[in-house]
Amino acid sequence: MHVVVNAAMSADGKLSSRRREQIAISGEADFERVDRLRADSDAVVVGVGTVLADDPHLTVKDETLRGQRRENDRPANPARVIVDSSGRTPPDAAVLDDAATTYVCLSEAASVERRAALADRAELVTAGDERVDLLRAFATLQEQGLEQLMVEGGGELIFSLFEAGLVDELRVFVGPKIIGGRDAPTLADGEGFVADFPSLDLESVDRLDDGVVLTWRVADR
Amino acid sequence: MHVVVNAAMSADGKLSSRRREQIAISGEADFERVDRLRADSDAVVVGVGTVLADDPHLTVKDETLRGQRRENDRPANPARVIVDSSGRTPPDAAVLDDAATTYVCLSEAASVERRAALADRAELVTAGDERVDLLRAFATLQEQGLEQLMVEGGGELIFSLFEAGLVDELRVFVGPKIIGGRDAPTLADGEGFVADFPSLDLESVDRLDDGVVLTWRVADR
Repeated sequence: MHVVVNAAMSADGKLSSRRREQIAISGEADFERVDRLRADSDAVVVGVGTVLADDPHLTVKDETLRGQRRENDRPANPARVIVDSSGRTPPDAAVLDDAATTYVCLSEAASVERRAALADRAELVTAGDERVDLLRAFATLQEQGLEQLMVEGGGELIFSLFEAGLVDELRVFVGPKIIGGRDAPTLADGEGFVADFPSLDLESVDRLDDGVVLTWRVADR
Repeated sequence: MHVVVNAAMSADGKLSSRRREQIAISGEADFERVDRLRADSDAVVVGVGTVLADDPHLTVKDETLRGQRRENDRPANPARVIVDSSGRTPPDAAVLDDAATTYVCLSEAASVERRAALADRAELVTAGDERVDLLRAFATLQEQGLEQLMVEGGGELIFSLFEAGLVDELRVFVGPKIIGGRDAPTLADGEGFVADFPSLDLESVDRLDDGVVLTWRVADR
């Protein structure tokens, strides 16, 4: 399995403002880059916070890219994966429509009612007591044939994935804005590391739109 | 007056961990870049949080650079400026030694006792009621002949300077580490913007050590 984290952050490392509203950090060329990356993936992964804040669809936007996937005997869109410990994904979320298979990764803490509301529309993967055990959940996804995973946020999920040692690559568009805010979501939130910081190797630096895409490989720990 | 903000942040936009301990984000080549930038400046500016956390000296480390300054009839080191609304700078702080002139910018909220403790060792600049009025304080610094200012952090001061429209240029070393943490200090903290985000122009992108230096010009608002 290969896990790529992809995100757009402001020049000061924020994914959005303290109000958690979507902010246009990147431009058209970056949207196309992200769309190609989605089309190259078996699944697109987000945390439930991103579903609740943005209600994204997570499908491939370019008809040509979807056609190429079909020609290669793949579904038009990659699967979608929601990491959602307590089952808060709204049953009418865009990510649960029938454009692609959706997996919702839950912990044992998700109630029977919430599971029942999601079971019609998604494949449920349960791993962990209070929070999703990401190592186990991702192993289950791999058993389902999902090898190439693209994680699109948010900062809580990205931190947890780094903590679990599951990230292979980080691609960050750094955009030409200052958002600021000690309470604004950043690329990696969570508790944070205080030692043994994950170490990266800078693989490439590419100017795009009015910013830059940094591609980092995660070094072995 | 020309104000350059310079900082080193992790790949996820953090200046240090949630414990606010100094973390080696950059390497030798970046230290030399920062030293040259200090040597080119009339003053180096930090917030009192940085003084309390790191007790920096803020002097030019390279003897040759200090010698060049002297040859140009400048003091060996640039002046040091502490933005310190309530006068919390410890009288034994390294930044108050006699290696350079030091200005402490206070608000009216700084007590007489604190002022008295600092008055021997620093030039006191008072502007603002509860917090330092940065526009007025920087105007006073300019009257003292300080034209080229380099701001080294922390994130609270950097946000306040962007809010006041005082930043001309932002130079960020982005280093090969993930720090994480929703409570870790970022490049720009404070309240944060929710609209009218300061807009930047990417002037240059330079690989250095194991990271990259992004030089941004602040666009007119």
